Amino acid sequence: MISFESDYIAGAHPKVIERLTETNLESHSGYGSDKYCESAKEKIKKAIGMDDAEVEFLVGGTQTNAVVISTMLQDHQGVIAAKTGHVSAHEAGAIEYTGHKVLELPGYEGKIHGDDLISFIENFYGDESHDHMVFPGMVYISFPTEYGTLYSRTELEEISRICHKYNMPLFIDGARLGYGLMCRQNDLTISDIAKLCDVFYIGGTKVGALCGEAVVFTKNNKPAHFLTSVKKRGALLAKGRLLGVQFDALFTDDLYFEIGRYAMDMAERLKEIFSAHGVEFFIESPTNQQFVVLSNNQIEKLRKDFAFSFWEKKDEDHTVVRFVTSWSTKSEELDALDRVLDVLFN
Amino acid sequence: MISFESDYIAGAHPKVIERLTETNLESHSGYGSDKYCESAKEKIKKAIGMDDAEVEFLVGGTQTNAVVISTMLQDHQGVIAAKTGHVSAHEAGAIEYTGHKVLELPGYEGKIHGDDLISFIENFYGDESHDHMVFPGMVYISFPTEYGTLYSRTELEEISRICHKYNMPLFIDGARLGYGLMCRQNDLTISDIAKLCDVFYIGGTKVGALCGEAVVFTKNNKPAHFLTSVKKRGALLAKGRLLGVQFDALFTDDLYFEIGRYAMDMAERLKEIFSAHGVEFFIESPTNQQFVVLSNNQIEKLRKDFAFSFWEKKDEDHTVVRFVTSWSTKSEELDALDRVLDVLFN
Amino acid sequence: MISFESDYIAGAHPKVIERLTETNLESHSGYGSDKYCESAKEKIKKAIGMDDAEVEFLVGGTQTNAVVISTMLQDHQGVIAAKTGHVSAHEAGAIEYTGHKVLELPGYEGKIHGDDLISFIENFYGDESHDHMVFPGMVYISFPTEYGTLYSRTELEEISRICHKYNMPLFIDGARLGYGLMCRQNDLTISDIAKLCDVFYIGGTKVGALCGEAVVFTKNNKPAHFLTSVKKRGALLAKGRLLGVQFDALFTDDLYFEIGRYAMDMAERLKEIFSAHGVEFFIESPTNQQFVVLSNNQIEKLRKDFAFSFWEKKDEDHTVVRFVTSWSTKSEELDALDRVLDVLFN
Amino acid sequence: MISFESDYIAGAHPKVIERLTETNLESHSGYGSDKYCESAKEKIKKAIGMDDAEVEFLVGGTQTNAVVISTMLQDHQGVIAAKTGHVSAHEAGAIEYTGHKVLELPGYEGKIHGDDLISFIENFYGDESHDHMVFPGMVYISFPTEYGTLYSRTELEEISRICHKYNMPLFIDGARLGYGLMCRQNDLTISDIAKLCDVFYIGGTKVGALCGEAVVFTKNNKPAHFLTSVKKRGALLAKGRLLGVQFDALFTDDLYFEIGRYAMDMAERLKEIFSAHGVEFFIESPTNQQFVVLSNNQIEKLRKDFAFSFWEKKDEDHTVVRFVTSWSTKSEELDALDRVLDVLFN
Repeated sequence: MISFESDYIAGAHPKVIERLTETNLESHSGYGSDKYCESAKEKIKKAIGMDDAEVEFLVGGTQTNAVVISTMLQDHQGVIAAKTGHVSAHEAGAIEYTGHKVLELPGYEGKIHGDDLISFIENFYGDESHDHMVFPGMVYISFPTEYGTLYSRTELEEISRICHKYNMPLFIDGARLGYGLMCRQNDLTISDIAKLCDVFYIGGTKVGALCGEAVVFTKNNKPAHFLTSVKKRGALLAKGRLLGVQFDALFTDDLYFEIGRYAMDMAERLKEIFSAHGVEFFIESPTNQQFVVLSNNQIEKLRKDFAFSFWEKKDEDHTVVRFVTSWSTKSEELDALDRVLDVLFN
Repeated sequence: MISFESDYIAGAHPKVIERLTETNLESHSGYGSDKYCESAKEKIKKAIGMDDAEVEFLVGGTQTNAVVISTMLQDHQGVIAAKTGHVSAHEAGAIEYTGHKVLELPGYEGKIHGDDLISFIENFYGDESHDHMVFPGMVYISFPTEYGTLYSRTELEEISRICHKYNMPLFIDGARLGYGLMCRQNDLTISDIAKLCDVFYIGGTKVGALCGEAVVFTKNNKPAHFLTSVKKRGALLAKGRLLGVQFDALFTDDLYFEIGRYAMDMAERLKEIFSAHGVEFFIESPTNQQFVVLSNNQIEKLRKDFAFSFWEKKDEDHTVVRFVTSWSTKSEELDALDRVLDVLFN
Repeated sequence: MISFESDYIAGAHPKVIERLTETNLESHSGYGSDKYCESAKEKIKKAIGMDDAEVEFLVGGTQTNAVVISTMLQDHQGVIAAKTGHVSAHEAGAIEYTGHKVLELPGYEGKIHGDDLISFIENFYGDESHDHMVFPGMVYISFPTEYGTLYSRTELEEISRICHKYNMPLFIDGARLGYGLMCRQNDLTISDIAKLCDVFYIGGTKVGALCGEAVVFTKNNKPAHFLTSVKKRGALLAKGRLLGVQFDALFTDDLYFEIGRYAMDMAERLKEIFSAHGVEFFIESPTNQQFVVLSNNQIEKLRKDFAFSFWEKKDEDHTVVRFVTSWSTKSEELDALDRVLDVLFN
Repeated sequence: MISFESDYIAGAHPKVIERLTETNLESHSGYGSDKYCESAKEKIKKAIGMDDAEVEFLVGGTQTNAVVISTMLQDHQGVIAAKTGHVSAHEAGAIEYTGHKVLELPGYEGKIHGDDLISFIENFYGDESHDHMVFPGMVYISFPTEYGTLYSRTELEEISRICHKYNMPLFIDGARLGYGLMCRQNDLTISDIAKLCDVFYIGGTKVGALCGEAVVFTKNNKPAHFLTSVKKRGALLAKGRLLGVQFDALFTDDLYFEIGRYAMDMAERLKEIFSAHGVEFFIESPTNQQFVVLSNNQIEKLRKDFAFSFWEKKDEDHTVVRFVTSWSTKSEELDALDRVLDVLFN
């Protein structure tokens, strides 16, 4: 069985697991006070070209979103996100669990539009009874989005400008940041991302680590007593080294970007294979998640050899499914898919 | 200044304040254990024709929605409501504050459609990853809605059927129930409401009381230890008699319904006045809230003598405003409005 | 049946209910924007001699404690209180419901000691792992306490000094403030209270109102967007006038203090009656709550004519019970108690 | 520098890290649906001799406590724990963050007494106003406790009996379970633990894993929709295999118990070394955490070569410090300590 199910099907990138093994018997203090966390933070700050950025490590994506959003919002505020955003749709209410509303904007292949954002805010403040409503206090977007799409530089600059005009921090969920950055169509560097937003996270879980996300506060805006707030949310890892060593490895010799580039190469190949067989794309995704429409019959046959994800029903006979590449995708796996599609579509 | 601003501009209906005065010096135990609470509960159960209904009194509408929803939902569930529903839009995030998401459906002049409800639920359960999503656990509607509209018997029966098919309680916010019930177009009795839903509340604040809402659990489904949960939410009134005496008065000699009927008569007259002057209605509302479109210039002039509410901007030159009648609206106030419109529109 | 059960057994003081009736048919905007709220705020500020105090009205005591504490604490903080404090023991976990811990100090007849407070804080900051603990972020005391006792000027000044040394606001729960202020042994004015603390509330429910508490922020420290936070907690009253009119009446011609003085006279008389019959006092309470030890047999007999509260079991044969006076206690009711005790103890 | 600072200073036990490496490139589905999670669950159920136990994996201790407690308590309930318990004192308010109070009992070297537990419950239900209080809904203890002490079989049976008499689940925090079980003085097996409680967790983080705790529900009482509740709390690990592989390794060939035994041998040796030098023990701890009293001068000197934890100040000149052994403690490290103490104490 060959799996294109997600970008978290394998363990860690070999260089990451190697470093975990090498450092395994060293003694270090807990809760992120070890030297690897320190070193990883320095390397990340260097990679984004921002000396005074503040970096903190957390374990997973939903956890990171909930911690960042709930510690940065004020009591009367909620977070704006696409209706299809991860925080809106796929976190089982983790944001609401912290007592804050997700204010949903229309999503266009996963992205929000600057126009909608302005309208929302203007309508809010234009409403005479807005003191009885949840104030927009932050904007959440993901890069790439849940649909694999990317904001262009122009789009991100516009959203950033709007956020700052209305004094709202912009938070970028980078669970798959490495793949977005290394995408051919992308015109943004990690440094641009850092400058345009107020806080973002560099996804580890989906980009080579066993677990871990690196939150970067880029405007000297890390919430006071952040460690205590993290502990209060059950999100403080005792052996912080597990995160430190991994991110230290990922940001040594540009491994993080190399992983991204590799997976993007695999994704390009995957797209070519689907195109060559005339498979319909559900969305024009430029990154490592590809959404295609297959007949239920085709799906049934493919499932004998390949794992991939159900995305949504298209009609009675067709379904949208997702194929994902990552650092662990092998070239031969794509060859195998190509061969099976040959049979299936002829 | 004559006010059509809302249905909570005056104190209590004269018969209600009279009873508060008459009983004022009596000694009663606190927290709803007094004889007036008891008597009011009995009268309400009689009015709805349901001997085993369980009635509890709370102070205000948002509080009631938050208490009912958060005590009836399970941890993994959220509440379905129209995007324009009070719990979605006008409670400052009170439901999310309890840790639960409001799952928003399209609102059609304030109402949800059965079709959308079915689609939402079917899509939810059809999604293979729905364990990572908020489960639909309850449906919230209001009668009348925030736009003054009403569900017909057919519509309510359909929603009720869908809710029960999927094991979700149906909660009806009756902040303005008295006005809805007494509306000419309405084809539902309070007894029908009680049977079709699982829990509803009879609004007092907007229908003759100084404050107070009567929650009715109609399926032997009052959450265990409800009083403690109410206390925990800061919603338990020490002098419960304040609520008991008022609802006892409201449900004596059909006062509650009489209030509703009177306000509806005033609303009919209000509509005629607007129609006679060619004023555009924003929505065809059958109840005591009327939404009309006026030019900003007209609004400016009207505001010298009348109070009414901003609803939303229509275009640069026009605004939607709301006029509301209630038990406290006087016939002469409508005469005065009629006269001023004569001048304004000629 | 004569009731000494609590200070919330009757409705409102006659002058308060009278004002509610007189103003009943006036039209006013909602949510505390009416002229009576305005006027009441001015009168309260004058009474405490603090022009720039910020006053807000809420409905009940537990609600007020939860709103004030949760809007003033930061995420990593908890509130220090006596183990016997209302927020610790008798609010069904309302503070914890807001996500904050109550840090309990020993209570001495309801009061905390400055020494314990200092030790607690010093131990906290002396602990190298205190980032894993709840930070002390506020001190809550009540005046009078749940046991009827009062802090002396010296005691309150000490606690105030400690709080400010460690940058913690001091919050005084004045649910029964009127009775404490008018107590003979009390050496603090309402103005002293206001100066020594950072926020306190003037209890209405137990001191002449149907409901209502007036929160006073005394250091220009009202939380931003307080109205929205109040709404979010389901604590915003639509007909704010209900609170405004009542507090306006209570702070007209010193009614609030007159009520306090009267209840204290009744309490003095009550103490004399118990003393004269050799009844043992459980606590030397100087205010309107009196705790006495009676045999279970005596209690059974007294309960035929009098209502009073169970407090706690003393031993197999004796129980501590509470008798409370208020503005509604009548002199003849004390005469009746005196007569029955004559019989009971002879 | 030799560290006795804690039992989480090293990475994973060599056999655990080895298995992570071996399985690293395998493809597995996420969120705990992989075969290693399955296998680990089976091995754990076998180890405790309970076929129908339900096992779930979480990442860390505070997270586990918050998830278990908040999903098992009802709305009106809190959890009873020692005042010194981890949930009371060292989780930054993580339990309160879920909206539930920790009801604190006196701790005796970390343990609660059955007598206090009964008194607490009896007083609660004996209080006529207990509906205004937090109901005791669960009992939390740790084995070993935060002070390294253990409940004997007799003690645990008593607590278990009390819990079940009052219908409260008993929850045992086994963050250091392996050390407690393998302690010479211990008279309980893991199977006894499972039977006497309703839910417990087998600590991985401190007993050989990089991270991870295995929650065991022993009475068919796993909360419904547990995975969704875990996700909602940000506690669901994408690569669940990370936990599955580790626990699978720990429960292969009794590794978990072997680790415990080894650390206990080291602890025995540590105690002998301290005893031989006349060092005062703060507590008679039978497990891998040893608390000793040293002069500040001695501490300063020791800190040149050894890391250990501050526990609490004893007096101006003395401090209680904690030395901890684990699977990673080396015999030579104890030799080195022995030698330095020889010098220090002569």
